Amino acid sequence: MKKNICLAVLAMASLSISAQVAEDFKPASTNQENKQYPMVNSQRMVRAQIAAPNANSVKLDIGGVKYDMKKDENGVWTGESAPQDEGFHYYQLEIDGASVPDPGSKYYYGASRWGAGIDIPAADEDFYQVKNVPQGSLNEVYYWSSVTETMRHAYIYLPAEYISNPTKKFPVLYLQHGMGENETGWGAQGKTAIIMDNLIAQGKAEPFVIWMDNGLNARPAGQQAQQGGFGGFGGFGQGGQRPQGQRPQGAQGQRPQGAQGQQGQRPRGGFGGFSFGGAFQDVLLKDVIPYVEKNYRVIADTEHRAMAGLSMGGMQTHSITLANPTTFAYVGMFSGGTFNVNELQDAADFKKTNKVLFMSCGGKENMGVDKAAQDLKGIGINAFSYVSPETAHEWQTWRRSLYQFAQLIFKK
Amino acid sequence: MKKNICLAVLAMASLSISAQVAEDFKPASTNQENKQYPMVNSQRMVRAQIAAPNANSVKLDIGGVKYDMKKDENGVWTGESAPQDEGFHYYQLEIDGASVPDPGSKYYYGASRWGAGIDIPAADEDFYQVKNVPQGSLNEVYYWSSVTETMRHAYIYLPAEYISNPTKKFPVLYLQHGMGENETGWGAQGKTAIIMDNLIAQGKAEPFVIWMDNGLNARPAGQQAQQGGFGGFGGFGQGGQRPQGQRPQGAQGQRPQGAQGQQGQRPRGGFGGFSFGGAFQDVLLKDVIPYVEKNYRVIADTEHRAMAGLSMGGMQTHSITLANPTTFAYVGMFSGGTFNVNELQDAADFKKTNKVLFMSCGGKENMGVDKAAQDLKGIGINAFSYVSPETAHEWQTWRRSLYQFAQLIFKK
Repeated sequence: MKKNICLAVLAMASLSISAQVAEDFKPASTNQENKQYPMVNSQRMVRAQIAAPNANSVKLDIGGVKYDMKKDENGVWTGESAPQDEGFHYYQLEIDGASVPDPGSKYYYGASRWGAGIDIPAADEDFYQVKNVPQGSLNEVYYWSSVTETMRHAYIYLPAEYISNPTKKFPVLYLQHGMGENETGWGAQGKTAIIMDNLIAQGKAEPFVIWMDNGLNARPAGQQAQQGGFGGFGGFGQGGQRPQGQRPQGAQGQRPQGAQGQQGQRPRGGFGGFSFGGAFQDVLLKDVIPYVEKNYRVIADTEHRAMAGLSMGGMQTHSITLANPTTFAYVGMFSGGTFNVNELQDAADFKKTNKVLFMSCGGKENMGVDKAAQDLKGIGINAFSYVSPETAHEWQTWRRSLYQFAQLIFKK
Repeated sequence: MKKNICLAVLAMASLSISAQVAEDFKPASTNQENKQYPMVNSQRMVRAQIAAPNANSVKLDIGGVKYDMKKDENGVWTGESAPQDEGFHYYQLEIDGASVPDPGSKYYYGASRWGAGIDIPAADEDFYQVKNVPQGSLNEVYYWSSVTETMRHAYIYLPAEYISNPTKKFPVLYLQHGMGENETGWGAQGKTAIIMDNLIAQGKAEPFVIWMDNGLNARPAGQQAQQGGFGGFGGFGQGGQRPQGQRPQGAQGQRPQGAQGQQGQRPRGGFGGFSFGGAFQDVLLKDVIPYVEKNYRVIADTEHRAMAGLSMGGMQTHSITLANPTTFAYVGMFSGGTFNVNELQDAADFKKTNKVLFMSCGGKENMGVDKAAQDLKGIGINAFSYVSPETAHEWQTWRRSLYQFAQLIFKK
């Protein structure tokens, strides 16, 4: 009897969901070549599908919710999520308790793993579509870090004019990802190169270079990381994360003396505190900026240097630009909190140097960026705020934030 | 009774495998950050592990063989493969019949999907390790194709000197991937930029630019692809594979007139025949080479142009360089068959133009490259052959082939 009631309730629930689903699903733009699933409909619901003939249970895990999928007579499982926000979301499938990447999706780094992602069409998506305009390039590079004593992996965006105008020098934005992400985020799901090429072609942004580094793995040489990911910002786990670089003297793979003694020592800038610069600040100031200014045609002064980041990267921007007030003229925090009047009131160097202080967040976040900007204007800061409509702590907020911020900086 | 015999046989089999396994497994270099599995031991066996508490069966699928994995009391499955060849291999996990990427691995495009890959340490791996030498960059670009009427996606390797010496012009190698792969293959699992940076730093190769394009999706505008992948080389599926590019006149998404009438027509250059140039030849000659020679500092003549490719890309190289005998001075086929005396004996233009004809394969393949090179030398061709020790039709063969070929071309 109880079982029958349950079945009846399930049947009704199922019916009521079916009645609401618009059957206009299309393959997602983030799918692998030739893959039909996952799909998205006009209600921004995600429909996933996978063949798992011998599975007991398959779920679609997106936006913090697991949705049961249903098996057909051929062993193919299909299921839909509730409507999602416009823009990019990480997700996975759960097959009999195993959380795995959907084989239909391309893969992105976030939530501390390479895994599936899906782009939900957005009303304003035109600004991040590839167009037939002069194309810059997103460049994968390695560089030697004296701080970590490793070859480090990064990306540099060069605008089209960097190649077409070989004597011109450009300003530089140092642009950081968030917690659980890495140096690939801005270029892949962030669509940085596409956004910039389009803005530059429209004359809305000055052409500038963008450096995208890893703000999480900048462990100083000789410091042992804590296990488990978020323990320390300088944190490195075991197991091949460290790029296979050679020390200049050939000491490949050999740890500096004293490393064992420091085992378990917490790198500066832990997540628990609010000092979000830490080891990455050293890498940025001692290695990255000198490397970029030596090896690329960039204008090596404060007025042509910007720093911005999303979430944790915004907090790193906050702490690094505050601690180094004459290094960057432009500062952007995307879903990374706010500067407040107290910390800037008497910051004479920062106030003299700063030309734009930009703070943004998603409309579904409550970060007080408008109020903060208003307050900061009151003490003479050229502050801007931006709130992304109908989005949360997610990439659509940050794509839009970059689109806004890029139009404010390095203006003649 | 029968069951007991089976169990006894299984127990013996298990015992005999255990006795052979060297317990010196280490995380693979291709793992995601902080992921312990998959691992490789000194016997080049792969050990995979995944938590799948409710699964009935989990298998490791590598090298064309599926290996049963075993569940422990915590629902974690573990299992090993037989020894693999040195170098890179695609693989996947099978959970209750669902073939999925291992969540421990980084992802690579091959076997017509983005999925897991594993690098087995190799005795000669030093040549593709990142070192602290002058670094070129691997650059992601889009360009407009008049043939496909889309923005196409490609990669260009620029040697370190391209940036450091801004007036110098460079030769160009056009380098193609194999069947089921795409434009990301040479840069990712092929390690092209790393191999080149190291060779150039050692003075073993001239610095040159490398263009890496997609040789499979070059469908001419107005031609409809066949469904199902290998049907035609110009093949495009439905579903977001086509980059979202705008036509110059704004006809975004609109098909040219007559497209419906041509539906189902086989693009030139199908797999069934041996005309491996086809649509990609048009893209390469009409769009790519003019684009590269206009937009980059390259030397725009035959003597500074090379073409090479692996497997299908080698066959494309064969057919395109034969059909356009005065376009490329250097030709490389890696596991892509051979040129023969008959087709070159009277090819006066080809013989006059060609400076190096390189043919290679894995030692476990039987492609007759040594004999072919010998024969071609007999008719005055500067032919070279290379056989990669102990490897098959796989990336270690092609990394080594690039390493060899790069040392032969554009020499003054």
